[in-house]
Amino acid sequence: MTNQTIPYKIYLSENEMPKQWYNLRADMKIKPAPLLNPATLKPMTPQELAPVFCEELIRQELDDTTAYFDIPEEIANFYKMYRPSPLVRAYCLEQKLQTPAKIYYKFEGNNTSGSHKLNSAIAQAYYAKKQGLKGVTTETGAGQWGTALSMACSYFGLDCKVYMVKVSYEQKPFRREVMRTYGASVTPSPSMETQVGQRILAAHPGTTGSLGCAISEAVEKATTTPGYRYVLGSVLNQVLLHQSIIGLETKAALDKYGVKPDIIIGCAGGGSNLGGLIAPFMGQKLRGEADYRIIAVEPASCPSFTRGRYAYDFCDTGMVCPLSKMYTLGSGFIPSANHAGGLRYHGMSTTLSELYHEGLMEAVSVAQTSVFEAAEEFARIEGILPAPESSHAIRVAIDEAMRCKQTGEEKTIVFGLTGTGYFDMVAYEKFHDGLMTDYIPSDEDLAASFAGLPKVD
Amino acid sequence: MTNQTIPYKIYLSENEMPKQWYNLRADMKIKPAPLLNPATLKPMTPQELAPVFCEELIRQELDDTTAYFDIPEEIANFYKMYRPSPLVRAYCLEQKLQTPAKIYYKFEGNNTSGSHKLNSAIAQAYYAKKQGLKGVTTETGAGQWGTALSMACSYFGLDCKVYMVKVSYEQKPFRREVMRTYGASVTPSPSMETQVGQRILAAHPGTTGSLGCAISEAVEKATTTPGYRYVLGSVLNQVLLHQSIIGLETKAALDKYGVKPDIIIGCAGGGSNLGGLIAPFMGQKLRGEADYRIIAVEPASCPSFTRGRYAYDFCDTGMVCPLSKMYTLGSGFIPSANHAGGLRYHGMSTTLSELYHEGLMEAVSVAQTSVFEAAEEFARIEGILPAPESSHAIRVAIDEAMRCKQTGEEKTIVFGLTGTGYFDMVAYEKFHDGLMTDYIPSDEDLAASFAGLPKVD
Repeated sequence: MTNQTIPYKIYLSENEMPKQWYNLRADMKIKPAPLLNPATLKPMTPQELAPVFCEELIRQELDDTTAYFDIPEEIANFYKMYRPSPLVRAYCLEQKLQTPAKIYYKFEGNNTSGSHKLNSAIAQAYYAKKQGLKGVTTETGAGQWGTALSMACSYFGLDCKVYMVKVSYEQKPFRREVMRTYGASVTPSPSMETQVGQRILAAHPGTTGSLGCAISEAVEKATTTPGYRYVLGSVLNQVLLHQSIIGLETKAALDKYGVKPDIIIGCAGGGSNLGGLIAPFMGQKLRGEADYRIIAVEPASCPSFTRGRYAYDFCDTGMVCPLSKMYTLGSGFIPSANHAGGLRYHGMSTTLSELYHEGLMEAVSVAQTSVFEAAEEFARIEGILPAPESSHAIRVAIDEAMRCKQTGEEKTIVFGLTGTGYFDMVAYEKFHDGLMTDYIPSDEDLAASFAGLPKVD
Repeated sequence: MTNQTIPYKIYLSENEMPKQWYNLRADMKIKPAPLLNPATLKPMTPQELAPVFCEELIRQELDDTTAYFDIPEEIANFYKMYRPSPLVRAYCLEQKLQTPAKIYYKFEGNNTSGSHKLNSAIAQAYYAKKQGLKGVTTETGAGQWGTALSMACSYFGLDCKVYMVKVSYEQKPFRREVMRTYGASVTPSPSMETQVGQRILAAHPGTTGSLGCAISEAVEKATTTPGYRYVLGSVLNQVLLHQSIIGLETKAALDKYGVKPDIIIGCAGGGSNLGGLIAPFMGQKLRGEADYRIIAVEPASCPSFTRGRYAYDFCDTGMVCPLSKMYTLGSGFIPSANHAGGLRYHGMSTTLSELYHEGLMEAVSVAQTSVFEAAEEFARIEGILPAPESSHAIRVAIDEAMRCKQTGEEKTIVFGLTGTGYFDMVAYEKFHDGLMTDYIPSDEDLAASFAGLPKVD
């Protein structure tokens, strides 16, 4: 089939939608390192994880051999409300850039939560409900995950308690209000509601919070409240499993038109979007069936892949969670206050960390103002107002397309457009007014943060 | 085909998309009354309209005999970026209400402007560009039209000057920022930039503005600036023509599955959404080919159809525009400050006014708090956060579905979900906090407003 016949947007029909999630780990020769109990330094057992996570999710978390998991019908039905998401051929962007590259993006922002986070939220809420729980707790930074979980919990009639990083809570009252629309309770973190929150506030009275700190509070609340468990929107293996729906749909849409990508690009905070988008492609790569350049894009202000250490570290600031081997900036690392949007987590998915460590994917970091330049350009040309997170991938997709223009190569570029920027207009305003700044942590800053890494061999 | 085979979302493919707009007036036996020159009380000629509107748009405005207009390729290409919009089968809502009714909604919110307004904005920008103009001026209330026009102008490289009703400008800084992202300039109205603005400010120093007043300013600016024309997002015949894409897609999607609606419901402010949604269905009705119940829903706080007069009136507060025969509350009418969102125009499309006058459609008004109850219920069940405007249609769709539950009738209900509520969270917050109130203008208020109607036979 020739490119002329490719529509602007490729939608799969309901019967073309994936029926199973794909578990990338099953095809990895070297498996991601296990979570460790910080007290014993032994791998966490299902029994040890049970007070924190739902049973079925623990099974998914620890299973690194089963390649496919059936998507339960209740989740598939919910997916039908907002999926398949379109795979868009960026004809307008190609024309504007005058590039021979062919650019596609998988747009995950066409649902009320505004991002791909809903794909895992609905799965986690489903398993919590199935286990007979009353509710779940979680943290949220930029607010996308919290919104997604609120929607999912509302759908299944579960209570939803969200600890929202204080700076976001104050800067994004509308995000909070969307969560309330879905019946969630939202607490600014750190709070006095938990012991770990009290401890952090005592040590850092003026803190505006961090994801790591909100995680600690949500975990404490879940483990001390009967009928509750903790759920997390990124980093975990189970989340990458659910998010594989992004990549599976993308691949099915491309296959339908006989298109094979050369470069696949995704933004990376904890890895939920990137891990999901690349899953089936990386699977082919691991099985030696195909080769792709895969690029993770992260903010220069929070550069886990490009400047972090590959080491065991705490997932949270309060050090109540298991240890995870990952590219990390240290669990005490907090991005500069001028950093807008998400992608502010100190660590990274263990699966993606191992793949990166083995050289199976690349990573690049980009400065904030260059990201907003790409965002505004994209909004004007493709008509979608992108989230700051997603715009990291746009930046590098444009850069790669411009490289093709120089070399004349007709490469096919696919990137993940994870969400919309409706709740990020404060950041856009700063950018318009010329008040946006870039921040790159110094080597000294990082060294200080690395000093807090736990000693694990 | 049975209902079991109907997917959650019906998307037309690119080659199933309408190639022409449908001009409802061509099938009307009694044509909508012409615009009158307020000085001569004679119908406005193309020559008189030329300083205000683009040439091709004047042709469309005055043509009440041509049934179909080809959609130019440049506009069709832009439509491909965000259209077709999905026709959604509200399976979840049906189940929740336990109604035998079958509910569908045409969702127009999946584009960055957040509403159906983009359908006409891109057409008007195209014709302005084709005429070689430098830019256009307009007014915006809730901000959806201004955002849509900003996007459209950015796409065609036109300058865009928006007069935004002052109360919205202040309450919705993020809307303003989206417009700036697309390069538009936004001025709170009334302003000191125009003579009419100065006059209104002198007479009402504390005014928070109104649509009618912003229209006056935008028209003055367009007619006094070389290379500029004025564009309007509702009320006009040309707008209904462009918006017929909504109804044409809806009908094509329903026809594909052999579904015939019984009731078609749309919110009505100036009539752009309602006129577009019902166009092909009303056309059938006018030609005697089919019958439908068609219901316009308006706010109880701004009830043009249900409590207005069918009379010639000014379209704007400053009385610089032609006279239009329509259901009107009087050009001096301003909805109470507690009214959230759009649907605040004092008048109504002349086409819809004539159809309503002839009894070809019904109208109902609903109170604000009941609208937000429906909005929240819908958000939780169908997963889409609706705009306050759209939620008027949701309210009545639910009411009709509940009536079916009582009678046991399996009616098919189609309603227009015109947009999303991301920029309306202040109103949602009021609702959540129990601070939202209802306001219904008294007969005395309306009588005072009617007293300002011009004397025309």
